[in-house]
Amino acid sequence: MSFVAEPTRVLVAGGSGYTGALAARLIDRHPQFELATVTSRSDIGRRLSDLYPHHRVDAVFEELDVERHGEVDAAIVAYPHGASAPIVAALREREVRVIDLSADFRLRDRDTYAQWYGEHGAPELFGTAIYGLTELYGAEIATADLVANPGCFPIATLLGLAPLARSGTIADVVIDVKSGVSGAGRAATHRTHFVTVDENVVAYGVAGHRHAPEVDQELAALGAPVTATVQPHLLPLGQGELVSCYVTPTRPWSQDELDASYRAWSAAHAFIELSETPPGVRDVRDTNVCALHARVDARTGKVLVFAAIDNLWKGSASQAVQNLNLMFGLPETLGIEP
Amino acid sequence: MSFVAEPTRVLVAGGSGYTGALAARLIDRHPQFELATVTSRSDIGRRLSDLYPHHRVDAVFEELDVERHGEVDAAIVAYPHGASAPIVAALREREVRVIDLSADFRLRDRDTYAQWYGEHGAPELFGTAIYGLTELYGAEIATADLVANPGCFPIATLLGLAPLARSGTIADVVIDVKSGVSGAGRAATHRTHFVTVDENVVAYGVAGHRHAPEVDQELAALGAPVTATVQPHLLPLGQGELVSCYVTPTRPWSQDELDASYRAWSAAHAFIELSETPPGVRDVRDTNVCALHARVDARTGKVLVFAAIDNLWKGSASQAVQNLNLMFGLPETLGIEP
Amino acid sequence: MSFVAEPTRVLVAGGSGYTGALAARLIDRHPQFELATVTSRSDIGRRLSDLYPHHRVDAVFEELDVERHGEVDAAIVAYPHGASAPIVAALREREVRVIDLSADFRLRDRDTYAQWYGEHGAPELFGTAIYGLTELYGAEIATADLVANPGCFPIATLLGLAPLARSGTIADVVIDVKSGVSGAGRAATHRTHFVTVDENVVAYGVAGHRHAPEVDQELAALGAPVTATVQPHLLPLGQGELVSCYVTPTRPWSQDELDASYRAWSAAHAFIELSETPPGVRDVRDTNVCALHARVDARTGKVLVFAAIDNLWKGSASQAVQNLNLMFGLPETLGIEP
Amino acid sequence: MSFVAEPTRVLVAGGSGYTGALAARLIDRHPQFELATVTSRSDIGRRLSDLYPHHRVDAVFEELDVERHGEVDAAIVAYPHGASAPIVAALREREVRVIDLSADFRLRDRDTYAQWYGEHGAPELFGTAIYGLTELYGAEIATADLVANPGCFPIATLLGLAPLARSGTIADVVIDVKSGVSGAGRAATHRTHFVTVDENVVAYGVAGHRHAPEVDQELAALGAPVTATVQPHLLPLGQGELVSCYVTPTRPWSQDELDASYRAWSAAHAFIELSETPPGVRDVRDTNVCALHARVDARTGKVLVFAAIDNLWKGSASQAVQNLNLMFGLPETLGIEP
Repeated sequence: MSFVAEPTRVLVAGGSGYTGALAARLIDRHPQFELATVTSRSDIGRRLSDLYPHHRVDAVFEELDVERHGEVDAAIVAYPHGASAPIVAALREREVRVIDLSADFRLRDRDTYAQWYGEHGAPELFGTAIYGLTELYGAEIATADLVANPGCFPIATLLGLAPLARSGTIADVVIDVKSGVSGAGRAATHRTHFVTVDENVVAYGVAGHRHAPEVDQELAALGAPVTATVQPHLLPLGQGELVSCYVTPTRPWSQDELDASYRAWSAAHAFIELSETPPGVRDVRDTNVCALHARVDARTGKVLVFAAIDNLWKGSASQAVQNLNLMFGLPETLGIEP
Repeated sequence: MSFVAEPTRVLVAGGSGYTGALAARLIDRHPQFELATVTSRSDIGRRLSDLYPHHRVDAVFEELDVERHGEVDAAIVAYPHGASAPIVAALREREVRVIDLSADFRLRDRDTYAQWYGEHGAPELFGTAIYGLTELYGAEIATADLVANPGCFPIATLLGLAPLARSGTIADVVIDVKSGVSGAGRAATHRTHFVTVDENVVAYGVAGHRHAPEVDQELAALGAPVTATVQPHLLPLGQGELVSCYVTPTRPWSQDELDASYRAWSAAHAFIELSETPPGVRDVRDTNVCALHARVDARTGKVLVFAAIDNLWKGSASQAVQNLNLMFGLPETLGIEP
Repeated sequence: MSFVAEPTRVLVAGGSGYTGALAARLIDRHPQFELATVTSRSDIGRRLSDLYPHHRVDAVFEELDVERHGEVDAAIVAYPHGASAPIVAALREREVRVIDLSADFRLRDRDTYAQWYGEHGAPELFGTAIYGLTELYGAEIATADLVANPGCFPIATLLGLAPLARSGTIADVVIDVKSGVSGAGRAATHRTHFVTVDENVVAYGVAGHRHAPEVDQELAALGAPVTATVQPHLLPLGQGELVSCYVTPTRPWSQDELDASYRAWSAAHAFIELSETPPGVRDVRDTNVCALHARVDARTGKVLVFAAIDNLWKGSASQAVQNLNLMFGLPETLGIEP
Repeated sequence: MSFVAEPTRVLVAGGSGYTGALAARLIDRHPQFELATVTSRSDIGRRLSDLYPHHRVDAVFEELDVERHGEVDAAIVAYPHGASAPIVAALREREVRVIDLSADFRLRDRDTYAQWYGEHGAPELFGTAIYGLTELYGAEIATADLVANPGCFPIATLLGLAPLARSGTIADVVIDVKSGVSGAGRAATHRTHFVTVDENVVAYGVAGHRHAPEVDQELAALGAPVTATVQPHLLPLGQGELVSCYVTPTRPWSQDELDASYRAWSAAHAFIELSETPPGVRDVRDTNVCALHARVDARTGKVLVFAAIDNLWKGSASQAVQNLNLMFGLPETLGIEP
C-alpha cells in the first residue's frame, strides 16, 4: 500500500473523556490522518498523556476555538449529549466533515428525540446525519458530511441481529446488555467508585434506556419493525460489552440456515468475526472487532445471538475511525487492523 | 428465645467444595445444630480451615464411612451430580434425614432426568424428595426425610417469578443469568483460571443448561407451564448471582398491581427483600436473602424481574440450613439471620 | 454468658462513610450496645441501608446536635481528620466516653502533629487520649474517656512488629503496605474510579505518608526507636490490607526463636492469628482478626513479617468496638467474634 | 524506513503458554520477522487463536521436530525451567540463534544454579549465554548466538536500580514485587483459581524466591555487590508487575542528583520512561516500556524506586523481540513501538 496524499487533518473536540482520548490516539498513530488539535473543556494546558499515560499522546489540550481549530478536514466531536449539537453546527458551517460521538444526531424522528432528550441544539441539522454504523451504511458514510456515530449498545446489537432483521423474521427481541464501567464515562461518581462496582453486578436504566429507540429505529430500517426490550447491566470490568439477544422468530430457523446466514454476514465485513464458542469481551479488547455467535435453542425455538465488542473501540472511537477511513477514500481497516 | 433441646447432630458429607465447606461452617456456628462430622474425598486429614481459612472451622476432614458417620440426626450431602444418589440412599437406609445439594433428586420426571443426566444412582428414591425451596414448599419440607436443595439459578428465578407464575400470567420468559465464578466450583480448570475470567464476560451452556428443566418443572408447579429460555453467563466476581427475567405476560400488568403483588410476596417471607432500585449482588453477599425488583416496561408491556442472591448462601448452603431449621422445628431464620 | 445490665447507648457521629457505617452496624447488632443515633453531614434523612443495603441498618441519618445526641454513654466519631477534634471536645464536655476514628488524637507530640496536620482543633485535649490498639493498651483503654483509634496501616504494622519491637532488636524497618480501595474512603474521585484502579497497582504518598510518624511513635513506645520507611500502594480490591515488613535486626534471629515469640504473642490475644503460610487478606475479611506470618530470610538475615487485616474492620470499625467492649467491662470479643 | 532484506525466519518453541503465545504473535506481525513454526507439547493441531482468540494468529501448533523445525534463522524457546536446556542445545547444534525464555541459562555460577535448580540439562552450554536485558547488554546481544532472557522481576528491578547500582552506592536493598496472575503461568491450579485470587493479595516464595540470585548476580555486575531481599506477592490483576525498591544508600542522595541520574538513564534508552508520579502497571500494559519513578525519602534517607512493566511483554516476550531486533541488525524498537 502506498498513500502519497497529504495527510488528512483531524480535530478531536472533547479529548479528555475516555472515547475522545482514544479517538485522539487512534488519529495520532494513523498512517494517513494527522491529529491537528485536541481540545478539552476541563483540562486545558495538560498533555493528553498526563491523563492517559498508556495512550502516549503528547498533544496538549487546547480550549476549543471553532474559528481557529476549524481549519481542518474533519472533526471527531466527543461532547456529552446536548452539548455536542452546537459545536457540530459550528464546524459544519466551516465545511468541516464531522463525526459526532454523541446521541445528538442518531435519531431521525424529532418527536422521539424530544421525548428522550428534550430540545435539540441544532434543529436545522436534525435528520441530516448518516447513521455511522459502517457495516450497514458504508456507501452513504463514504460521501457524508455529518456522521452520527452510534451508541455502543446499538452497535453490538445491530451487528448481531442484522442477518435476522434483514430476513424479516424477528417477531420479538430481548437484548440483555452487560457493560464495563468505562461505558459510564470518566466522571467520578458513587456509581463508578471502585468499591461500588467491585464484586457486584446490577441492572440500570430499567425499562427505558435511551439507546432503546435507537435500536428500534435501525432494526426497523433493516426490516424488523419491533419494539425491543433493551436492558443494560453494569459489570466489574473496565472495558468491554457483551450483548445477549433473545429473538423470538416469526418462523423456525435451523442451525444450518443460521450458520450460513452469519457466515455470509461475517465474510462480507472485515470486522465481523464468528466465534465457534460464545465470545468473551476479552477476545475483542482494544480492537474494532465485533465477535458473534448465533444459536437456535431447540427447546424453545428462540434464536440466541451473542455479540462482543470493546465499548471504547468498536463501540465508539475506532468505529469513528472506520467511518473516517471511508469518508476519505481509505481502506476501511487502515490504522485499526485487528 | 430459649431452646433447651439437645443439639441436632449433622453430618456434612463432601466438605471440601465451596458449598459443602460453607454448609459445615453454618452448622458449626448454629445455635441448635452440631457439626458431627465433615467428610471429604480429596482432603482427608486436613482441617477445613487449612482449605478455607476464613471459615475458621477446626474440624478435620474424614473419609466418609456411612456406617459410623450415619449415627446422626441429619446430613447435608455436597457431592457432585451422580455421585450423590448412592450416598443419599445409604444415609436414608439409616433413617438419617438428608438434604442433598446435588441435582440428583430435584427432577420429578424420570425421562427428563435420563435425558439430562443419564442413569440415576438410586432409582428407588427417585421422585420421593421434596424440592427444597423453603418459600414454596415450607410445609412439606418440615416433615420431609429427603430434601433436594435446588440449583442456584432456579432459586433466584423461582423466587423472582413466583408471584407472576402463581397469577397464571406468564406467556413466555427469558432468564438471563449472571453468575460469579464460585458457581463453577472449586476445580481448577482453564475456565476458572483468573486470567481467563478477569476483565471478561462470556455465555456458557448455550441453548441447553441443565438447570432449565428444573426451572420449567417448578414454574409449571406454580401455575406457569412454559418452556423457559435460561442462559447463564460467567462474570468476573467470586460470589453472587443476578438473574434478569424478561416475562411476556398473558395480559397487561400495571406497575401498581405488580408492586402490590411483590409486596405481599416479600411480606410473607423473611428472606425475600424488595429493593427500590435494582439490587446488586453485593447487597446480599454472605446472606440468605433474595433481593427482588420488578418493573413493567411501558414500551413493550414486558414485566422485568431482577433477583439477586449469593450463589453459595441462598443459592446453596444457607438455603439448606433454612430447610434444616424447618425440618427440626426451629425458626426458619435461626443461625442465618440477615 | 448472661448480661443483665442496661444496654450501653452509643452515638455514631459521621455514619455515611465506610467506617462510620460499619461501626453503626456493629453497634446495632451488638448484644450489649444500642445504636442511639447515627448522624451524617451529607445524607440527613436517608436510611443507612439506602447507602449500604448490605448493612441492613434501618436507622435514619440525623444532623448532629451535640446537645441532644450527647445524651449517651459513648460515641464513635467518624469524621475526617481536623473536623473531628471539635466534635470530640463537645462530646467530652458532656462526659461522653469517646472513640475517635480520625487522626486528631493519635499523636502525642504537638510539633509532629503540627508538621503533618497543621493546627489542632481541640488543643486542650491534645495528648490526653489513649492510643486505641487494644493489644498494646488494653488496660489503659478500659478506663479511658478518650480513645484515639489507630490508622489502619499502623494497626497491621504494630501488631506485626510488636514481638520484635519489644525485644529491642529492630535496627531498621521497611513497611510496604498494600491496601484495598475502601481505605481511600467513599469520596468519588478520579483516583477511586473503577477504571483507574481496575487492573492496576500504584504507589501513593511516596516518601511521606501521614501514618509514618504514628508508626514511629508507637514502635518507639514498644522499644524500637526507629524511623520507619512506610510506603502504601493502592490495589484493585475493595477491602483488605496486607503489610509486608522487612526488618533489619540488631542481631540474628533463628526461625525457632521467632516462632516461639510469635506463638506467645498470638496466644495472648484473641484476635492475633498465626498463619502457617503467608496470610491473604481474604482470610480475615469481615473480621477483627489480624493474621501474621514471620520468617527469617536466611540469605540476608532480615526478618520478614506479613500482617493481614480488613482495613474497615480491624483497621477501624471493629477495632473501635473491641475498645468499647473493654471500656464498658465486656469481653473483648463480644459482638465481633471471628 | 525501508527494509529490503529477506524476512528472518523464527521458530517459537512452546507457544501454548502465555509468553510463548505472545512471542508468536509479536513475531507474526513483525515487519521483518516471519513466524516459521510455532510448536506446543499440549495442544498439537489446534490453532493458536483457539487458545488465545485475542492474538489473532492462525498458525497451528506443531509437535517440535528439531530436525525439521530447526531450519530457521532464530528461535524463541518458551519451555519450563529444566525442560528448555536440551531443546536449546539441539537448536544451537543446528546453528540456530536462540533466545531462551526460561531460567536455564541466566545464572553464570554453576553452584548457584545447582543450589536453586539442580542438575543442568546442557552443561556444555552453561555460562555461554548473554544475559538478555537489552539496556544492559545491548552490544553483546547484537552478536550473541544464545541469549538468556531475564526473569520478569529481575527485568523491572535491574532497570529500576541500574543508575544507583552503577554509582556504587547501594548498601542494601529490599525489593517488594507485586505481580499479576499471568506471571504464575497458564496452568490451572488452586493458586490461580479466580476465587482464590479475587479480592485477595498474598506473599509467596517467602525468604527464597528463585529470582533472587539472578538479581544479585546482575546487581553485582553493575557495581552493587549486595544480597537483595526479594519478596513477590500475587495480586488480583491479570497482567502487570510493579516492583518497589527500598535502597539504603552508602551515602546521601539529593533529589536533584537522583533526578539527573534517572533522566540520563531514560534519555539513553527508548523503552525507559520516567513518570512524574509513581507509575501504575496500567500505564505500560501491552507495551515493552518500563516506567520508573525514583524518590529520596527525606525522613530516612532511603532511595525509593518504583518500576512498572507488563510481565508478559517487557517482562518476557517483547523483551525477547527487542533482543532479536538487535541480533539481526534491526532498530531496537521495530515491531514493538510503544
